[in-house]
Amino acid sequence: MAVFTAVRTQDQNDYSETNARLEDLVKDIPGYLGMDHAQTPGGLGITVSYFRDADALTEWRTDAEHRAAQKLGQAEWYQSYSLHVAKVERSHGFTRAEDAQSPTAD
Amino acid sequence: MAVFTAVRTQDQNDYSETNARLEDLVKDIPGYLGMDHAQTPGGLGITVSYFRDADALTEWRTDAEHRAAQKLGQAEWYQSYSLHVAKVERSHGFTRAEDAQSPTAD
Repeated sequence: MAVFTAVRTQDQNDYSETNARLEDLVKDIPGYLGMDHAQTPGGLGITVSYFRDADALTEWRTDAEHRAAQKLGQAEWYQSYSLHVAKVERSHGFTRAEDAQSPTAD
Repeated sequence: MAVFTAVRTQDQNDYSETNARLEDLVKDIPGYLGMDHAQTPGGLGITVSYFRDADALTEWRTDAEHRAAQKLGQAEWYQSYSLHVAKVERSHGFTRAEDAQSPTAD
């Protein structure tokens, strides 16, 4: 997976359009599994992208449109960012049972 | 590193206090390197915790207060979450030069 943490600049011209375009593009990468994103208003944004293997991530990393967007990101949109590429060793999840907070009478 | 993505419930009693306590506690784990957090209002929160090695992460995972908080999280605070433990393979960062967006006259 790839973990991208970023603080943006004031200059967000074309950011949304490019971001939407990249979100479409990455779906065409074989082995792309999905993405999670959280954005603190006026603060840090974190995007986690999940890929089946290193090859899938390499294909995305070297995509021409993606690379052009990275250059624009450094030139305009990002104050700072860091990218960590990491191999998932274990995962687990939790989903609340629907009635967990409103138990029925018996 | 550990990547925790979570959607919270309406019931956030004691969440902030517990969270602040855990943020203090984790700093005492040898090998803890830091944390990044982003929170979309009313949406997803992502917390990335960085540890030097698997031993440091195991020590945090098995900390008694941390485990008690995890139980409260499932009982009250989280609608759903997922945790991915991953080994960082490579990283890079970018920080904008201070005058990159306001070049001087010469």
